[in-house]
Amino acid sequence: MSEWTEYADQLTRQARRASRALAIAGGAKKQRWLHRSAELLLSRTDDIIAANALDLQQAPAYDLNAAAIDRLKLTPSRLQAIASALGDVAGLPDPVGEILDSNVRPNGLLVTRVRVPLGVVFFIYESRPNVTVDAASLCVKSGNAVILRGGKEALHSNIALHRVLSDALIETGMPEHAVQLVQSTERQIVGELLKRGDRIDVTIPRGGKSLIERVAAEATMPVIKHFDGICHLYVDKTADQQMALAILKDSKCQRPGVCNALECLLVHQDIAESFLPKVGALLQTEQVEIRGCDRTRQLITWAKPATDGDYRTEYLDLKISMKVVDDLTAAINHIEEYGSHHTDSIVTNDLSAANRFTAEVDSAAVMVNASTRFNDGGEFGLGAEIGISTDKFHARGPCGLRELTSYKWVAHGSGQVRN
Amino acid sequence: MSEWTEYADQLTRQARRASRALAIAGGAKKQRWLHRSAELLLSRTDDIIAANALDLQQAPAYDLNAAAIDRLKLTPSRLQAIASALGDVAGLPDPVGEILDSNVRPNGLLVTRVRVPLGVVFFIYESRPNVTVDAASLCVKSGNAVILRGGKEALHSNIALHRVLSDALIETGMPEHAVQLVQSTERQIVGELLKRGDRIDVTIPRGGKSLIERVAAEATMPVIKHFDGICHLYVDKTADQQMALAILKDSKCQRPGVCNALECLLVHQDIAESFLPKVGALLQTEQVEIRGCDRTRQLITWAKPATDGDYRTEYLDLKISMKVVDDLTAAINHIEEYGSHHTDSIVTNDLSAANRFTAEVDSAAVMVNASTRFNDGGEFGLGAEIGISTDKFHARGPCGLRELTSYKWVAHGSGQVRN
Repeated sequence: MSEWTEYADQLTRQARRASRALAIAGGAKKQRWLHRSAELLLSRTDDIIAANALDLQQAPAYDLNAAAIDRLKLTPSRLQAIASALGDVAGLPDPVGEILDSNVRPNGLLVTRVRVPLGVVFFIYESRPNVTVDAASLCVKSGNAVILRGGKEALHSNIALHRVLSDALIETGMPEHAVQLVQSTERQIVGELLKRGDRIDVTIPRGGKSLIERVAAEATMPVIKHFDGICHLYVDKTADQQMALAILKDSKCQRPGVCNALECLLVHQDIAESFLPKVGALLQTEQVEIRGCDRTRQLITWAKPATDGDYRTEYLDLKISMKVVDDLTAAINHIEEYGSHHTDSIVTNDLSAANRFTAEVDSAAVMVNASTRFNDGGEFGLGAEIGISTDKFHARGPCGLRELTSYKWVAHGSGQVRN
Repeated sequence: MSEWTEYADQLTRQARRASRALAIAGGAKKQRWLHRSAELLLSRTDDIIAANALDLQQAPAYDLNAAAIDRLKLTPSRLQAIASALGDVAGLPDPVGEILDSNVRPNGLLVTRVRVPLGVVFFIYESRPNVTVDAASLCVKSGNAVILRGGKEALHSNIALHRVLSDALIETGMPEHAVQLVQSTERQIVGELLKRGDRIDVTIPRGGKSLIERVAAEATMPVIKHFDGICHLYVDKTADQQMALAILKDSKCQRPGVCNALECLLVHQDIAESFLPKVGALLQTEQVEIRGCDRTRQLITWAKPATDGDYRTEYLDLKISMKVVDDLTAAINHIEEYGSHHTDSIVTNDLSAANRFTAEVDSAAVMVNASTRFNDGGEFGLGAEIGISTDKFHARGPCGLRELTSYKWVAHGSGQVRN
């Protein structure tokens, strides 16, 4: 057994044991842990910020740019926000034990499905240290033990934050290994953990495409994947054009670097002449580069020509692809061909167009007359999210507490037999 | 491209296209297909039985034993039963489009989760030809295209049955490739299909452990696995002993060769002396071989000694492991250590014992005062099942129409933006 095999064996064995105790820990106990973690986090502000300073010192050596360094940085007010998020999670309803549905069979057997934790979650993420606390709080609240593997750039911060969570576990009589942090930045340990499908129930990687692809390829357990968002806005011929412009601006410009930001605008040909000049003016003001089809470029002359590859690109930047389409069917076909099944929106006042769009566009989230930016756990009312799944299996779209659970069938009888 | 790569490419491309049309096919259309399939099945009874005769002729060459040959055999009354099952599936509520839940956000956005098909199902199964029709009916009813790969022993029967389903698709204006049968018994084609995670949404293997392990190892898409059932019955000290005996007999003897049959009996030490002699008498009458712990063998002298390996064995036969345990905790710990998380049952009259057992035993189905044999789609009220999942992810326990679906988030707004 290599050093890393042994470490993975130890982490997963401890997590498995903790998960058994966690699965039957009551909601009140988990709430006490969340509140105690928030208190300790605030009372240790100085220590945590000192640990964070070590990470910030090393950031240039990791080639982090200014935006990445800002994401890494912890301040008293950011710690306050993290503590407050712990309180929010404590306030969410406990998902474990909920009866999903039930039916009484003709023989009198009462058949129910009861929500239970998945078991052990392996969570892999990049540099933002607040994710350490957010992810742990959601996993434990839903009754799961979690093994956290953060980015190397945030190791010192993560160790300090993990100590808070871990001390609070001990103080509140919760299983100590409910939250474990991989205390090494060695890549091999990830590979060893991905082999332990016998003890880990799900792996959730959050980061770049290459990380997710590597994890999906190596994992021996289910993976909740979070791939690109090539999101579309289709403006139908019956659209309220002012509404469409507001949604376009919000979807594209409010925060262009995130997965639910808009990447491609499709416009019905019947309104192109009246609508596209307004689009051109708006995007010029917002300094958004346009890559458009020929019909777009006749109406917005400064737009660059779009290649097939542009329509397949997640810009994550102030750039947009545009296309004038013949009709709703052409819009749906374009989205099917070029989209990534993440988030797509229609602006329309035509009921049957709205119905067709929501039925036929096969994406995690489909919006009618709303910004693509709403595909988010907080905005959809989940309270908090651990990621946005681009899978169809188990969980699709924003993943909150519910998506970290499974169910068991519980049947209550009075001596029933089959014959 | 090899011949098999090309065939897999063709099958999956056709399935993908069919799945788009199927996802929006109305319930009535799918019902018409099910009813028409049933009619064609009956009107072609002679042809199907002739095709089945070819398989039966070759059965000895495949080393099939008498039981396997019986499972392979089609008769007019068996075809009648298959046709009748098609009618049952037609009568089930259509799962597609159901709104799972909804909430209105403070900004007025109406957020719903709508049930949608998974897309394309790859179903791999062994010799019983009726499964061809059952699986296809469930997949299509839930809006999925399916690629069927049956056992080589049933190829002629499957081709004849598939032709029925396929002709009915064409006659009722459904997508022709909604149901495709792999028309070759070559093993390589399975490997090629398992590579197509880009076009197949889930693979469901139904068969022996080695098949499932091979599929799980090679698959690039999610797999719904169906592993062993090492099922337990724990008889608590407060149990009604007559009830316990009836449940024991049903669980162990009614059909010992299936996954939800009982393999191990655990008895509370306080009732061992009064209860075990009755168990011994019952199992002797039923000709069940006992492998027991020392305490068991003091009370049932003809029982053989149980090894550690016996407690880990799925006998699928008239054999049972037995153990006298100190208390409920010891029973739960034994099940955790030796069980397979399939189906476990308690017989008790103690409410807190029942509550602890259902909360702490981490199995797909947990029964109170009922036979383990009830872990079954039909018995649980699903109408029909495509398998019993031993996974926790996505689907656990019996899988019916609902388990062949996913959901999408559909949000209806009136111009909402995030800022």
